Amino acid sequence: MGANLARNAARKGFKVSVYNRRSERTEKLLAEHGDEGVLQGSTDLEAFVQSIARPRPIVIMVKAGKPVDEVMEELIPYLDEGDILIDAGNSLFTDTERRSAEMAQKGLRFFGMGVSGGEEGALLGPSIMPSGDKDAWARIEPFVMKMAAQVDGEPCAAYIGPGGSGHYVKMVHNGIEYADMQLIAEAYDIMRGVHGISAGEIAEIFKGWQKGPLDSYLIDITVEVLSKVDTKSNKPLVDMIVDEAEQKGTGRWTAQSALELGVPITAITEAVYARGLSSRRSQRDEASRLFKVETKPPFKASAAELADLHAALYASKIVAYAQGFEQLAVASNTYGWDLDLGTLAKIWRGGCIIRAAFLDRIREMYAKEAPANMLFGPYFADAMQESLSAWRRTVARAIESGTPVPAFSSCLAYFDGLRRARGPANLLQGLRDYFGAHTYRRLDKEGSFHTRWSQDGSEIDA
Amino acid sequence: MGANLARNAARKGFKVSVYNRRSERTEKLLAEHGDEGVLQGSTDLEAFVQSIARPRPIVIMVKAGKPVDEVMEELIPYLDEGDILIDAGNSLFTDTERRSAEMAQKGLRFFGMGVSGGEEGALLGPSIMPSGDKDAWARIEPFVMKMAAQVDGEPCAAYIGPGGSGHYVKMVHNGIEYADMQLIAEAYDIMRGVHGISAGEIAEIFKGWQKGPLDSYLIDITVEVLSKVDTKSNKPLVDMIVDEAEQKGTGRWTAQSALELGVPITAITEAVYARGLSSRRSQRDEASRLFKVETKPPFKASAAELADLHAALYASKIVAYAQGFEQLAVASNTYGWDLDLGTLAKIWRGGCIIRAAFLDRIREMYAKEAPANMLFGPYFADAMQESLSAWRRTVARAIESGTPVPAFSSCLAYFDGLRRARGPANLLQGLRDYFGAHTYRRLDKEGSFHTRWSQDGSEIDA
Repeated sequence: MGANLARNAARKGFKVSVYNRRSERTEKLLAEHGDEGVLQGSTDLEAFVQSIARPRPIVIMVKAGKPVDEVMEELIPYLDEGDILIDAGNSLFTDTERRSAEMAQKGLRFFGMGVSGGEEGALLGPSIMPSGDKDAWARIEPFVMKMAAQVDGEPCAAYIGPGGSGHYVKMVHNGIEYADMQLIAEAYDIMRGVHGISAGEIAEIFKGWQKGPLDSYLIDITVEVLSKVDTKSNKPLVDMIVDEAEQKGTGRWTAQSALELGVPITAITEAVYARGLSSRRSQRDEASRLFKVETKPPFKASAAELADLHAALYASKIVAYAQGFEQLAVASNTYGWDLDLGTLAKIWRGGCIIRAAFLDRIREMYAKEAPANMLFGPYFADAMQESLSAWRRTVARAIESGTPVPAFSSCLAYFDGLRRARGPANLLQGLRDYFGAHTYRRLDKEGSFHTRWSQDGSEIDA
Repeated sequence: MGANLARNAARKGFKVSVYNRRSERTEKLLAEHGDEGVLQGSTDLEAFVQSIARPRPIVIMVKAGKPVDEVMEELIPYLDEGDILIDAGNSLFTDTERRSAEMAQKGLRFFGMGVSGGEEGALLGPSIMPSGDKDAWARIEPFVMKMAAQVDGEPCAAYIGPGGSGHYVKMVHNGIEYADMQLIAEAYDIMRGVHGISAGEIAEIFKGWQKGPLDSYLIDITVEVLSKVDTKSNKPLVDMIVDEAEQKGTGRWTAQSALELGVPITAITEAVYARGLSSRRSQRDEASRLFKVETKPPFKASAAELADLHAALYASKIVAYAQGFEQLAVASNTYGWDLDLGTLAKIWRGGCIIRAAFLDRIREMYAKEAPANMLFGPYFADAMQESLSAWRRTVARAIESGTPVPAFSSCLAYFDGLRRARGPANLLQGLRDYFGAHTYRRLDKEGSFHTRWSQDGSEIDA
């Protein structure tokens, strides 16, 4: 991805110096793409640094974690006051905060820069989420804005905020991506398992969903992946792929942070867990031998059932995004980042993996108002209201047929938990007071109370 | 709880010195309970330390976090080599690891000691989970074993392992407790919402479930809480309690650790999120006004429906415990703790909040074999098999009626995800390869592969 970012900048007319520890990589880049713009390679780190105009903006693109610190340590001796190191990998935001502080102590500046769009996005225009010293932003703004994807003439990049906020925002973007993909996988699973539809036919159904509210890059590539025929077996390629999902960390970090902040992001978390469960091959094999499950045989999908499924996918997706945006709002308050949620929706409209028409609806909403929950925006509230019955039918059908829908059902449980004036947590509070004297509040008066359950059973002010 | 632990030890015949920063608390304890055994109070910290026979075992019971470090800092100057500080609070296990290392550097010893049972358990016999230097164990073993609850003549306490393992085990215990309580709350919610049953009648139904596989302390106190009539309103007390659950951290930590370790503990995590959602009062109020949900009116529960609900609660509970025990197994391997899962089940049979006949079934299983997943133990596998259809019916009914069952449904999704030979993660891997060149594996041959999706569409070895 580093090479593609360099080519992207060179194509946009910026002079770009490149360095890789393995100089053959630099040579290959220059040999194959040196004519795309002013690309200058160095085999020596000091020479590389010296080739850049001060204050130097230097983009680091290595694996998150220790490699970032190692590259920084190598670079720092050659830097001058005011130079700016820019970490464009998927670093944990707390690492970015630490590195920012360490750099500041040395009179140097640091930017965390979330970049989404994969290999292709890096070259053709990704979504870019930079954060750091506001006064360094002027130096890097021109190339960030030009390298980013453009939608309606506006760059899919913006200054996010101080410290690690850019990497945080990118992390939640990836978390939402996990949830969105899991929801698509569950819809696919229902079509395959409940209705016995082949991969090619499922591709056609998703193709029909490309127009309308689900219109998105992930649906587009779902169509392409499901349509792909394996030349070796002449079967759909997807049917030849092992059903064990891998993960690299940002989804897990998103859930860990949400737990820290007390924000219920059930969809993202279930998506992370579903990947973990899928990778437990030996347990799954044992369980599939052990349990005799009388699931119903697949039955042909009616148009109404497919319409239900579309509604269920859409409603679940709205919940997943609403949860992610609430996490961003709470993180912003907690860490004092002053995030502009509308701007985040705006810069995710293009370039990144979750790019979609849908993000424009979110942007529009935040341009008008900032509801306490995205679900309360009129556009989304209406969509939820319209989808609800179909959503329930779809989830119930999947559950009765033995098809696991952890993200669909957790989104629905979240919605029902949110929209009910009275839930069952009163019992939890009663139990907590019973065994731990944790006290409870009452509906009919202010204050905290404790019942002396094991003594005389009387209630006392706590 | 500290006072009750001191009384417990004194009642068991140990000489106990007590100290509290607020000396009036010490005076009160001695005035009210000084005749229960040899209880000696100090108003001076040095005198307190000097009153204990070397090597001194000193139990600290303060709020987790900074207060523990502060008390340790105050105590350390008065300690002699080999003395043992024992933190009996709910400390985060990584803090315990750090404190152990710091103490060892000073020639002192440290124990993390998980204690479960609430106020009453602390006095009458809790479940105790101590970890630390094995050589210090001999000094504290006698009082730990005597203070603990006893079941079938065996103490509900055992040496857990090194470092922070005791606090880790206690943390997961609490996580399981969150899940167990959430499942009970969802069963209550179904009876109340789907079937329109009153709190008193629900208490009677739970009473009928006290015998049989659900037999547990939490079911016992559920009966008591639901039976309690509020003297002020003459209504069931539970109907007067605000439905916003609080939490102190151990549930959240359990989920964060599981995410770190890659163990899908959906039930505990959904329980944590459900509490978080319940506490969003203003959002819930807004949502309840905004969304018009045509839920079906309550209908009288048939005996068959209540039997289904019992089966659903039991199957979900088995999954929740299986997930928790897998987390313990993976943590043990990851951190080199060599945890004995059967022993943990054994010491949770009494004293602690999740105490239940059920734990004896887990103990029995681990005494014979250690399956890769608790669900594979014959006793539990049979129970799952028998409960499955009823479980599906119950969850589908709740979803169609608008009653959120996040823990019930996530347990069922986990089970269906585990027991199916073929899930939908093949599509996830296809998508990941499409946008990020993350590669996939094939069913028909070894190796990793990448399709050049946007180029010539060919597949290459990766």
